[in-house]
Amino acid sequence: MSSRHATAPARPVDDHRRRIEDALRPLAGRVAETVPIAAALGRRLAVDVSAPLDLPVFRNSAMDGYAVAAESVAIVPATLPLAGVVAAGNTEGLVLPPGAAVKVMTGAPVPPGADCVVPVEHTESDGVTVTIRTSRATGDFVREPGTDVRAGQLLAAAGTLLRPRHIAALAAVGLGELSVTRRVRAAVLTTGDELRPAGAVLLPGQIFNSNGIALAAALSDNGVEVVSVAHSTDEHAEFRLRLAEAVAQADVVFTSGGVSMGDFEVVKEVLAAQGGEFGSVALQPGGPQGLSTVDGVPVLSFPGNPVSTMVSFEVFARPILRELAGLPALPITELPLLQAVRSPAGKRQFLRGKLTEGGVALVSGQGSHLIAAMAHADVLIDIPAAVTEVPAGTIVEVRPL
Amino acid sequence: MSSRHATAPARPVDDHRRRIEDALRPLAGRVAETVPIAAALGRRLAVDVSAPLDLPVFRNSAMDGYAVAAESVAIVPATLPLAGVVAAGNTEGLVLPPGAAVKVMTGAPVPPGADCVVPVEHTESDGVTVTIRTSRATGDFVREPGTDVRAGQLLAAAGTLLRPRHIAALAAVGLGELSVTRRVRAAVLTTGDELRPAGAVLLPGQIFNSNGIALAAALSDNGVEVVSVAHSTDEHAEFRLRLAEAVAQADVVFTSGGVSMGDFEVVKEVLAAQGGEFGSVALQPGGPQGLSTVDGVPVLSFPGNPVSTMVSFEVFARPILRELAGLPALPITELPLLQAVRSPAGKRQFLRGKLTEGGVALVSGQGSHLIAAMAHADVLIDIPAAVTEVPAGTIVEVRPL
Repeated sequence: MSSRHATAPARPVDDHRRRIEDALRPLAGRVAETVPIAAALGRRLAVDVSAPLDLPVFRNSAMDGYAVAAESVAIVPATLPLAGVVAAGNTEGLVLPPGAAVKVMTGAPVPPGADCVVPVEHTESDGVTVTIRTSRATGDFVREPGTDVRAGQLLAAAGTLLRPRHIAALAAVGLGELSVTRRVRAAVLTTGDELRPAGAVLLPGQIFNSNGIALAAALSDNGVEVVSVAHSTDEHAEFRLRLAEAVAQADVVFTSGGVSMGDFEVVKEVLAAQGGEFGSVALQPGGPQGLSTVDGVPVLSFPGNPVSTMVSFEVFARPILRELAGLPALPITELPLLQAVRSPAGKRQFLRGKLTEGGVALVSGQGSHLIAAMAHADVLIDIPAAVTEVPAGTIVEVRPL
Repeated sequence: MSSRHATAPARPVDDHRRRIEDALRPLAGRVAETVPIAAALGRRLAVDVSAPLDLPVFRNSAMDGYAVAAESVAIVPATLPLAGVVAAGNTEGLVLPPGAAVKVMTGAPVPPGADCVVPVEHTESDGVTVTIRTSRATGDFVREPGTDVRAGQLLAAAGTLLRPRHIAALAAVGLGELSVTRRVRAAVLTTGDELRPAGAVLLPGQIFNSNGIALAAALSDNGVEVVSVAHSTDEHAEFRLRLAEAVAQADVVFTSGGVSMGDFEVVKEVLAAQGGEFGSVALQPGGPQGLSTVDGVPVLSFPGNPVSTMVSFEVFARPILRELAGLPALPITELPLLQAVRSPAGKRQFLRGKLTEGGVALVSGQGSHLIAAMAHADVLIDIPAAVTEVPAGTIVEVRPL
C-alpha cells in the first residue's frame, strides 16, 4: 500500500457557504404548525390573522358608575330611581326604564335605553335612588362594539414576530391556538472514539465531548429546534445507524469530526460513498468540510476540533439559519484591530476577539483546540484569504459570537 | 345604606414603582439551582467555575501525521521505520522507539519519545516505512496539556450569562450540570365573572380572558418562570383558594382585575382585609393598583382592562424583573412626538406609540380597553403628570414594549 497526499486547491469560504445556503434555503417552504397561544411567544405567524369577532364584543361601560339617558342628567343634581345593578359578566339583559338609572361596573353591558355612564365618583346613592352631580353627553364612558377591531379586520399579519402585545390581542379575540412557522429541526451527531460524555472517568487518550452540547446550544440560540444530539464511535456501522436515525427526524443534520486526512475518518468515508462532497475550504480554523444529502436531508459535516466546529457553525450555518428563523441578520461592524497579526496565505482566518474600548483585541490562545480561550471571545475577526500581515490599527470586519 | 366616593389623592407613579421594587428586590438573594448543561443556555452562573482538569487533558497531536523526534528529521528526506498507529481515543500507551515514526491522528496522544508531528501532507508511506520530506522543530503540531486552561483556573465567573461559547468550554472540562441563578417564579391570577377561556361560547356580557396569557408571555419574555396561570370568579371563597395556591408555589403573584371602585372588587376586598394597600396611582391607563404581602409573598394587583394590565406590567414590574433576571435595562430614548396630544392634569400618561422615520407616532386607539390597537404599538410614550398639552414635535421619552 502506498499513499501520497496531494494538496487539492481549497474552495473559497463564500463558495462553500453559498452551497450550504442553497441546500438549506428550500426549508423556507416548510409547513406551518399549530401551537397553543401560551407557547407562541417569539414565534412567527404563518398566516394573516383576522379578528373572528368585534372588540369590544358588546356595548359596555368604561367606568364603575350609573348608566342613564343623557337627557335624564341634563339638569343636575338629578335624583333618579335605581332600576338595578349590572356587574361585569352579568348575562341577564336588563333594560333601562325611562328616567331611571342602572348601576354598572367597568366592562358590564350598558343596558338598552342608556346612552352614557356617570362615574360613581360623581354620584351619591342610598341604594334606592342615585343623585347625579354632573351632566354627561351621549356616548360618555360607553365603549361601542368594534371600536377596537371589527370582525374580519386584520389583527396581525403573516410573518409577525409574536411579542406579548400580539399575544394579548390574539387572546382577546378568543384564539386558543395559532398557526406559526415551524422551526427548522436539526439533529446533531458527533463522532470520535476519543469522546466521552460528561461524568465519565477519562482513560488516557480520551476527552470530554463538548461539540454535541455546544452545537445544540448554538442551534437553539438561533431559532432552531434541536430534535436529537447523538454520538457515534468511528465504526462505520454505528455511524450509519446514528445517521439514519438523525436523518429520519430532522430537516438538517450537523456532524462533527471524521472529515480530515487521518486513517479513521468515518464521516467522510461513509458519506463520500453516498455522494457527499468532502474537501478543504480555505478557512482557518475549520478547513476540512463536507456537505451531503441523505434521503433529501442536507448533512453538514464540520471538523471535530471544538473551535473549528464552532467557527464552522458561525461562518457556514448561522446566517442561513437566522434567515430561515426570521431572526435579524447579525451585524458586521468595522473596528481597529489592536494588535498586529499574521495570517496564512490563501486562507480566510477567523480570529477570536474581544471588544474593548478603542477596538477589538485578540483573545490569547487562537489554536483550533483552545475552546476555553474561546469562552473569553465575543466576536470573530474576519481576515481575508489574500491578507498575510495585518498591522496594529488596521480596520477589520468583526461579527458577534 | 349611603355611599359617597371621595377622590383620595393619587400616589405618584415612581412612588408606587419603588414600593414594588422594594418588595421584590429581596428575591435577588434567591438560591441557586442546578440544571443540566444542555438546559443552561441563557442562564447566569451562580458561582465561579474553575476547570476541574487541564485542557488539553494530555499531550496530543494537532494534525493527522507522524510523531517523530525532531532530530530524526533534521536532514530530509528521511525514511523512518513505522512503529505503529495511534488513533484518537487509543488508550494503549505506545512509546516511540528511537529513530522511528508513529502515525498519529489529530487529537491522538503523542507517544513518549516523540517531540513533534509531521503533517501527513508532507510525507509518503508504504505502510512499513514513512519518508518525511520536511524538517520540524521540537513542539511543532504538539499540543501540551494545560495550554488552554489549567486545572483550578477560573473558566467562567459567577454572573456569566451563558452563551454557546461558554457552554462549549464548560462541556469540554466534563461538567454535566451547572449551578445557575434560579429564575424568579411568578403565578398569574386573573379575576372577573365576565372572563371566559379561549374556545368558550360567549354569552351576552362575557369576553375572552386575555390577561392571563398576556401576563404570562410578558413574564416569560423578561426572564421569569411562570409556574401557574389561573382564573377566579368574583367569589371571595374561590379567589382566596386560588390565591393560596398561587402563593404556595411562587415568589411573586400577579393579579388582574377587581381593584377598582365597583361593587364586586374581589381582589381589593380580600387582600385589603389582609393588610394589602389599594388605591389610586397617578397613572393613565392603570390608575387603580394594589400591593400586598401574603405569607411573605408579594402580590401585585393590576387593574383588569387589558391595556391597563400590560401598561402596569411595563411600568411597575418589568424594570425590577429584568434586574432580578440579570437582563439589560430597557433603553429609554428621546424622540420627537409627531402629533400634538393632551394629557390629564396630575396623571402620568403612557401612550402607545409606533416608531417611524422622524420620530414616534401615536397608534390610533388609546383607550385602556383597546388591546387590538396596542398590538400595533412598539413603544410607550411617557407624558409626565404635570404636562397637559404636548405640541407636535415635542421631545418625549419612549421605552420599548
